[in-house]
Amino acid sequence: MDTHRIKEAIHWRRLIDTLLDPAHYADLVLKGGYVINVITREIYVADVAIKGEKILLVGEGSELTGPSTQVVDVTGKFVSPGFIDAHMHFESAMLTLTEFSRLSIPTGTTTLVADPHEIGNVLGVPGMKAMIEEAKTLPQRVKFTIPCRTPDAPGLETAGVDISAKDMTELMADPFVQGIGEIQGFSNVHPVYQHADHILDDQIASVAYAHHLGKTVEGNAPALFGKELAAHIISGGTHVSCHETTTKEEMVEKLRYGVTVFMREGSSQRNMAECIRAITEEGMDSRRAVLVSDDMVPEDLLQNGHMDDILRRTIACGVDPVEAIQMVTINPATHFGFSDVGVLAPGKRADVVVLSELENMTAESVYLGGKKVAEHGNLTMKLPPYTYPDTVKGSMKRMKVTARELQITVSDRAQARVRGIKVIPDQNLTGAEEFELSVKEGVIQPCLQRDVLPILVLERHGRGGGIGKTFVTGMTLKRGAIAESVAHDTHNVIVTGTNYEDMAMAANRVIAMGGGIAMIAEGKVVGDLPLPVGGLMTDQLSGKELADAVTKLHHLAREELGCTLHVPFMHLSFLSLVTSPTWKITDIGLVEVDEFKILPTVIQEGR
Amino acid sequence: MDTHRIKEAIHWRRLIDTLLDPAHYADLVLKGGYVINVITREIYVADVAIKGEKILLVGEGSELTGPSTQVVDVTGKFVSPGFIDAHMHFESAMLTLTEFSRLSIPTGTTTLVADPHEIGNVLGVPGMKAMIEEAKTLPQRVKFTIPCRTPDAPGLETAGVDISAKDMTELMADPFVQGIGEIQGFSNVHPVYQHADHILDDQIASVAYAHHLGKTVEGNAPALFGKELAAHIISGGTHVSCHETTTKEEMVEKLRYGVTVFMREGSSQRNMAECIRAITEEGMDSRRAVLVSDDMVPEDLLQNGHMDDILRRTIACGVDPVEAIQMVTINPATHFGFSDVGVLAPGKRADVVVLSELENMTAESVYLGGKKVAEHGNLTMKLPPYTYPDTVKGSMKRMKVTARELQITVSDRAQARVRGIKVIPDQNLTGAEEFELSVKEGVIQPCLQRDVLPILVLERHGRGGGIGKTFVTGMTLKRGAIAESVAHDTHNVIVTGTNYEDMAMAANRVIAMGGGIAMIAEGKVVGDLPLPVGGLMTDQLSGKELADAVTKLHHLAREELGCTLHVPFMHLSFLSLVTSPTWKITDIGLVEVDEFKILPTVIQEGR
Repeated sequence: MDTHRIKEAIHWRRLIDTLLDPAHYADLVLKGGYVINVITREIYVADVAIKGEKILLVGEGSELTGPSTQVVDVTGKFVSPGFIDAHMHFESAMLTLTEFSRLSIPTGTTTLVADPHEIGNVLGVPGMKAMIEEAKTLPQRVKFTIPCRTPDAPGLETAGVDISAKDMTELMADPFVQGIGEIQGFSNVHPVYQHADHILDDQIASVAYAHHLGKTVEGNAPALFGKELAAHIISGGTHVSCHETTTKEEMVEKLRYGVTVFMREGSSQRNMAECIRAITEEGMDSRRAVLVSDDMVPEDLLQNGHMDDILRRTIACGVDPVEAIQMVTINPATHFGFSDVGVLAPGKRADVVVLSELENMTAESVYLGGKKVAEHGNLTMKLPPYTYPDTVKGSMKRMKVTARELQITVSDRAQARVRGIKVIPDQNLTGAEEFELSVKEGVIQPCLQRDVLPILVLERHGRGGGIGKTFVTGMTLKRGAIAESVAHDTHNVIVTGTNYEDMAMAANRVIAMGGGIAMIAEGKVVGDLPLPVGGLMTDQLSGKELADAVTKLHHLAREELGCTLHVPFMHLSFLSLVTSPTWKITDIGLVEVDEFKILPTVIQEGR
Repeated sequence: MDTHRIKEAIHWRRLIDTLLDPAHYADLVLKGGYVINVITREIYVADVAIKGEKILLVGEGSELTGPSTQVVDVTGKFVSPGFIDAHMHFESAMLTLTEFSRLSIPTGTTTLVADPHEIGNVLGVPGMKAMIEEAKTLPQRVKFTIPCRTPDAPGLETAGVDISAKDMTELMADPFVQGIGEIQGFSNVHPVYQHADHILDDQIASVAYAHHLGKTVEGNAPALFGKELAAHIISGGTHVSCHETTTKEEMVEKLRYGVTVFMREGSSQRNMAECIRAITEEGMDSRRAVLVSDDMVPEDLLQNGHMDDILRRTIACGVDPVEAIQMVTINPATHFGFSDVGVLAPGKRADVVVLSELENMTAESVYLGGKKVAEHGNLTMKLPPYTYPDTVKGSMKRMKVTARELQITVSDRAQARVRGIKVIPDQNLTGAEEFELSVKEGVIQPCLQRDVLPILVLERHGRGGGIGKTFVTGMTLKRGAIAESVAHDTHNVIVTGTNYEDMAMAANRVIAMGGGIAMIAEGKVVGDLPLPVGGLMTDQLSGKELADAVTKLHHLAREELGCTLHVPFMHLSFLSLVTSPTWKITDIGLVEVDEFKILPTVIQEGR
């Protein structure tokens, strides 16, 4: 037995003494608020009495109020369990976990389930370990779901490290590891089954091992129905989530099949409004509906908030506020088997949000383990600085490139028919298109009129330096080029642009910075952002500073490059994600996701 | 890792092959029924495709139907997950687990959570082990929640064996042990805290150990509210159930406090109609409401059914049938963390009930692990006979008694003022009353006119042979006496009657049989039933034979003894249960439950 459990047992006894011995009192009583009971789906007036880190009771607190008790009058305010973000990648905010905490705690988020698979793809187990050690220094509860495979699609992309079942023992033993994260490898059910079924067997071995340790497994089933959905669910051990559900029809099918649907409302992918219709229109039981952020940019966190903002949008879709709050409290807690958070009840951890308004979700104060940590949107505690080990830096391992190396070429033609990726705004899904492009001296030319641009991925983990090349429509650039080392999930260098020269310069800038984002126009650096931690995150900037920097980059992208996308860098970064349909680009080439194969970009004549 | 998990992993792979490889087919398809989806709270037409023990999918089954597939047309019928009885003592049916299975499987019960604390009180760990071994031979899923303490109230009663935290390691390691059963020891919160708080510490140690093993803990909180309820919940590790909730007010409070309320609908205690009002009248979320039987007599099982009958009664109270079925499927499965039963979904165990009528809950056929085991109320498989080891017999360890030893005496008075227990029909709770009784030659006399009879408990575990004596009203005997070795929870010999001679004879008959039930009138044996297994159960009779025998005893009790109670032996057996209020009788004496102390039966003059 670990000492944590023994300490908890002692804590229980101390709580019971406080409840039953008239000489003992609560440390803190939140008095007279409207308590949001997510178990019974009710709101009623009650006191919340707290001792140390735990809730004594939610009811009549006067007998527990003594001379040493701090009483906070919350009459007229709403008292909710702290919010849980059941699936998020802090790497997507390009922030350290500490800085993500700093931004999210004041909004009422008290638990994060972080999936460090970005850093895992770049740096493997040592990289993820550094993040887990960081989590242990934070007051916010952070649990990790870790990848059981990198890369997601071996043979179709190159990660920094190859993780498989053999690597499970080391990380899964850590109590901060909740289980296995999104099992993307078997999201492409039929192609993987037909072409790479060793991925399936390896995954099943990892899942069985996770269950053996009493840990959980999360799914990832974009656009799966029927037999394929069933196969995916079983491959994850039958109790899985999906955070890539984009239509009402999918939501209905997945809930019926037993999936916990993590309705995603991040910065660039927003699926709740569609998914929620299964509940608001069909009246389905919502106990397995959960709200998650998945990927958020820091300026969104700062300007709009985190789960509080997702709740506002959900309530605006016609969901009863208490039912919506269930989706960020008891529902995810039940899914993961979190026994001490997600409800306000005796003996549970005192993670509490006091809201001055219910429908507007205005978090007035936030308590973590019974201590007030935020008020009126500001953190009122000091977060310890966390210094990353050197192992998480210096991940950029490739030489610079020339414009010539980036060119997409074809011989003996004035016109070329090519395949290209179509961006779908606010979705990870892409379309598949074909274009006729002009050829000059054997080089296929971008077409700005039709918004068809080259897009390339450059391997950058020191594993061969391959370059995958294709075209994209929908990135809306009118000038210059953008490049970044954030490129899901293997995080090679992705670059797109209106000409090969600016593209080479953008990629080289990212390489020179050791990772980051760069914008070039007409041979000049328009803007850049170094991301030294794994090429994904900064440990140099605060959340506010990073948000300002990213806001500035977005502004420059709009003003200098003419890009009209809401979050162009996040969009670009997902164009290499080979686990959601239809076409994506990796360092190996243009990937036909549904067939688990590489397609040539240039279509041969006569085909 | 145990081999069970590895086999499951192989099973998963086989299921995926069946789903994705067109050359493979389901073994069985239940075709075209109205599927009851307890996740989404819906009913819709779908096929249930099964391979081996598991469900492949619930949806369109035609592609999985091949030449070797057995297709069962269930058009127009309702297809439900098998029912779970989340809290039951098979000892109360006086049947072996095998015979209980034989009666309950055809009614649709596919999982039992058995609490063997009756046998535990008599025979300790070896007795419970024998039952767990029996469960391993059965097709029905049986999990055990075991007592962490016997007797419940040390000092106030004498059990056959004293179990405490030190005994947890041996039993808790068994995979058939789900966790700790009802923590009755700390149901009497204030008195135990004040007078016997070592019970609390011992319990907390057991609870922490159970959590360490990933196991669960069940509560038992009759008539607890506010601070006492909170203390009880925390003493059980914060995630507990209660199956002794008797009023709407209690139901509301317990659900709000985070308790999973096991609404009891057994043969003699029926609390659902009152508890359910929290849901039907107040509209509370029912996700933590569960239906359980707790204690059932075999004739009830045979004549009325098991969970099916409880469902009928719940639906009759105005609960939507699918919501009611959630209370015996997904709700208990979620409470216990049963990952493979309670829903019909891919990869789950194919425990299925086909109902010909929904509101009448007519189980037409029952499948356990994909195999049809019952049809039209009859078991269609052979249950293996189970032979108990000798360790569970020969539990009767006391000498016979004389009428004189049983007399309740007082000196120098013609009248005596005495305390007595008041029976409340269909409840474990009792009232507390006082009576004036006449005295003849120093012996306090029963009063048939006012239905005030002596009631005694005789220690029978070879641990001193003490006799506790008091009076009872409400047993309604007009003649003779009844005695039995079923007397919760320590199962000494309990006897009541209209005269001391018949009472001695009844007790001696039970002793001579090595345990059982005996009825005597005017010096003659009116009826008896040997219960050789722990003095609690028969391994000589089938369920049907036992039901007939008990029906006959009830008939004789009515005809020969004039008893008007519905289930007099079960009622009698609970009059020694010291964990529910108000007054009870044990081998130590009259117990004032709320004060955790012994009261004198005869009230001294001037007091």
